[in-house]
Amino acid sequence: YIQQLDIELAAIEKGGYDHFMLKEIFEQPQTIFDSLRGRLDAKNGTLTMGGMREYADVLSNAKRIIIVACGTSWHAGLVAEYMIEELCRIPVEVEYASEFRYRNPVVGEGDVIIAVSQSGETADTLVAIESAKEKGAIILGVCNVVGSSIARLSHAGAYTHAGPEIGVASTKAFTAQLAVLCLVGLKLAADKGTITPQRFQHLLDELDQIPEKVAVALKLDDQVKQIADKYKDARDFLYLGRGYNFPVALEGALKLKEISYIHAEGYPAAEMKHGPIALVDDQLPVVIVATKDSYYEKVVSNIQEIKARKGKVIAVVTEGDQTIPPMADDVIFVPAADEMVAPIISVIPLQLLAYHIGVLKGLDVDKPRNLAKSVTVE
Amino acid sequence: YIQQLDIELAAIEKGGYDHFMLKEIFEQPQTIFDSLRGRLDAKNGTLTMGGMREYADVLSNAKRIIIVACGTSWHAGLVAEYMIEELCRIPVEVEYASEFRYRNPVVGEGDVIIAVSQSGETADTLVAIESAKEKGAIILGVCNVVGSSIARLSHAGAYTHAGPEIGVASTKAFTAQLAVLCLVGLKLAADKGTITPQRFQHLLDELDQIPEKVAVALKLDDQVKQIADKYKDARDFLYLGRGYNFPVALEGALKLKEISYIHAEGYPAAEMKHGPIALVDDQLPVVIVATKDSYYEKVVSNIQEIKARKGKVIAVVTEGDQTIPPMADDVIFVPAADEMVAPIISVIPLQLLAYHIGVLKGLDVDKPRNLAKSVTVE
Repeated sequence: YIQQLDIELAAIEKGGYDHFMLKEIFEQPQTIFDSLRGRLDAKNGTLTMGGMREYADVLSNAKRIIIVACGTSWHAGLVAEYMIEELCRIPVEVEYASEFRYRNPVVGEGDVIIAVSQSGETADTLVAIESAKEKGAIILGVCNVVGSSIARLSHAGAYTHAGPEIGVASTKAFTAQLAVLCLVGLKLAADKGTITPQRFQHLLDELDQIPEKVAVALKLDDQVKQIADKYKDARDFLYLGRGYNFPVALEGALKLKEISYIHAEGYPAAEMKHGPIALVDDQLPVVIVATKDSYYEKVVSNIQEIKARKGKVIAVVTEGDQTIPPMADDVIFVPAADEMVAPIISVIPLQLLAYHIGVLKGLDVDKPRNLAKSVTVE
Repeated sequence: YIQQLDIELAAIEKGGYDHFMLKEIFEQPQTIFDSLRGRLDAKNGTLTMGGMREYADVLSNAKRIIIVACGTSWHAGLVAEYMIEELCRIPVEVEYASEFRYRNPVVGEGDVIIAVSQSGETADTLVAIESAKEKGAIILGVCNVVGSSIARLSHAGAYTHAGPEIGVASTKAFTAQLAVLCLVGLKLAADKGTITPQRFQHLLDELDQIPEKVAVALKLDDQVKQIADKYKDARDFLYLGRGYNFPVALEGALKLKEISYIHAEGYPAAEMKHGPIALVDDQLPVVIVATKDSYYEKVVSNIQEIKARKGKVIAVVTEGDQTIPPMADDVIFVPAADEMVAPIISVIPLQLLAYHIGVLKGLDVDKPRNLAKSVTVE
């Protein structure tokens, strides 16, 4: 009886959705809003990060920032690297926690480590920051679970407020991480004085509009489902992007791997010609994140290269784009946004694509084989 | 007539080998020796790097080193990151040249950029260092082609002496890069005083023995050919490694992609449980580089995880290993070496595996589809 009740409760918690993953994808306008709320005040042009206050000086004077994470959180870290270097002019490195902890990395007094982990319990990340803390580094935790081990071990922190994530493949935690890491970068830049008031206000406004734009992107669900149906039997996928959208390509590929067991691989688009382009033939779907940004012209060239080898191009582009659609096999239009926050929007159709392919293949998308929600073993 | 003569000349140049790629794989004991010669004197415990002399102070006092490269050279850069951080205690970052050049990276006076490129003409790398040089960075070029654009643009340099590489998939240039980058790291460490005389001498001796050990590894050719025959029809491969062998896994996967058009992907072994392990089933060959080093115990756990999901394990292990062989489906024994130089040896069977699978599939291994030898376009 008890078991039956549990199942019913779980079903209720899905709130009418077929799976937790889909529910969590659709929660994102709210969870991003929750992660910005109380911090971002675009009207008054202010940004308050309570958990960073005590260490504000140390953080903004960092000579070097190292972001340590695994899996999806590592992808969020890659976006943050670009954000923080651009906003704060502090050199940033992103490390796989599992690699960082076992080698003897250069880290010491005055270095800042940003540890990104949904659960706050990721074993490799936890041990990595313990060792860095002993060496004198300041730890800034970006976790979703309040009071988690990583959160408790950190000197400073900025929680994501994505709520409990049940689906094993992370979705709403990722976009919340991107939003919060952008706030962290903006806060450091404001404290350090490396951002103009105009750019600061512009990015506050852009972040403020994100939940609404994500809601617009979610309306793509039916269209993405049709694309999923078209490519669900593909054996392999490539995902490509440049700049801020390069980690989005990695994340899109990881979602498809996790949910559909299709071998999807992400690459920075320009690296394709150094090897992976040998894989391209008329059987290979290539997802290209090609929103309007400073890399746009170069991404258009990459699309031409793929079409010349007869690859199938599924392009995620900005609303109003007229250049790429005639070249692509399938086009997904997303709302325009500043390139720094665009990943929060451009990842949405990739989450939906992985979800629908998984469901169409009859797989258990909430509990993919071989995977655990939080990797608390090493 | 002229064309016919050209073909005959090319055939002669293959020196009895069926393909340039195989000839170049077998040249490696010599090309590594040539890259060490005149620099390394293990008997007298000295190391001479003529091309670094003029900038010796600037280089060893670098606050930060950024390695910029593409493709196979980028993999050599990842190994060098670990080498230089360990030997010199200087923070090192490795960047895709194509990403580095288009964003606005933090780089300036006193930063050292190491540009790695076989041809010395890689367009993205060339533009990346031009822009960094304008910002005051010191450029150290590691190129194979004397007088190439990157070599000419560099302040300091250390050529690889691999000789002309004809096969599109880089093999002997990669191992020469690893050897030379190790020399660069040792030179910086000696100048900076961050290495004990004992460790310095030990690594000189280890490097000195590498050509001979690579010759031993090449005797694996027949065995690797048999393994190639067993797995040649696989649709997908995973390549895993940790620490110094993580970039070897990436490079092994890239070779297979380039030569056989099989979708092979490399990963740091511990990241597998954050997603890619969902791909593992009884159809998937997983190549694991698991030589005896400080990561060994952890890699053994990763092998157990894969076997628990019935993946096929092809393990590259150190001679004398008795732990892994009973767990693996296929075992390749390579000579023991210090973990810092081990990649030069452990990559050899992976080059042979890609070559033989490509040949067994009837493909043109010297000129894979869609690829150019030097990527001189952006």
